[in-house]
Amino acid sequence: MASISPSFDDFAIGSRFKSSREIQISAEQIKSFAAEFDPQPLHLDDEAARLVSAGGIIASGWHTAAVSMRLILDSDLPLTGRGVGMAVESMHWRTPVRAGDRLRLEGTVTEIRPTRSHAAREIIKFHVTVYNHQDAAVLDATHVVLVARRGAAPLIDLK
Amino acid sequence: MASISPSFDDFAIGSRFKSSREIQISAEQIKSFAAEFDPQPLHLDDEAARLVSAGGIIASGWHTAAVSMRLILDSDLPLTGRGVGMAVESMHWRTPVRAGDRLRLEGTVTEIRPTRSHAAREIIKFHVTVYNHQDAAVLDATHVVLVARRGAAPLIDLK
Repeated sequence: MASISPSFDDFAIGSRFKSSREIQISAEQIKSFAAEFDPQPLHLDDEAARLVSAGGIIASGWHTAAVSMRLILDSDLPLTGRGVGMAVESMHWRTPVRAGDRLRLEGTVTEIRPTRSHAAREIIKFHVTVYNHQDAAVLDATHVVLVARRGAAPLIDLK
Repeated sequence: MASISPSFDDFAIGSRFKSSREIQISAEQIKSFAAEFDPQPLHLDDEAARLVSAGGIIASGWHTAAVSMRLILDSDLPLTGRGVGMAVESMHWRTPVRAGDRLRLEGTVTEIRPTRSHAAREIIKFHVTVYNHQDAAVLDATHVVLVARRGAAPLIDLK
């Protein structure tokens, strides 16, 4: 399938995209995110984590999910400034993310449909998979995003 | 329906839970999260955000999702240290979160099923809704979590 141009071409069903870089996750980042949003021993404390997992602390799944958003914006899907997330239809955590892991993302546009209210807006669905540097899938998800067509006015119906 | 005791009672279908406090979201937190994970103008730049929304910047949906995890851990659902997130079956962003909003959470356990491999573990599903201080739903989601029963050994089959 054709990959998406980095210019603001329209989205097409079947278009594939991937992140332009890897993001490496450090132990400090895992602990900092967890301290704020997911303060559980497995994400915060090396000794506690080793009781259940030889590899030490693992990242909060919500940390991995947040990194997936950054990888989407760093991909050739032309989303930045054009989209507002509406929903995630399903998201699975497949493999724990550990300190030192380098994450990348691949995705496919699976659906595009017009909105009822506004001709210059579309609802797109795309499926993404985040891989670690050993090519194991760590997270996958299907996103539903309201996007403005190329050249359309910004999205203005936020409440 | 009965609320869940803050002790480690077993989970029950229909049990309801709620966060024990509100979390207030500041403009600095919105920008800091967005700079790391979701660097789009609507989350970062007051002037750019005002072009599309009179209320100024809005939080990344992934920021709100991360806060929802913190609110779950701060609730009377006895999850801390006992669960590993497997999936989110659906998550909808209903209303933008703005600087100064105070968020709280309510949830219900919707399903409990045994695991095939381990008698002391269960898979539970629960639905949560995050509300702002004006009682508007800002996010809802259904979580699927592998939990260790009360008194069981920690979860040790992480890869």
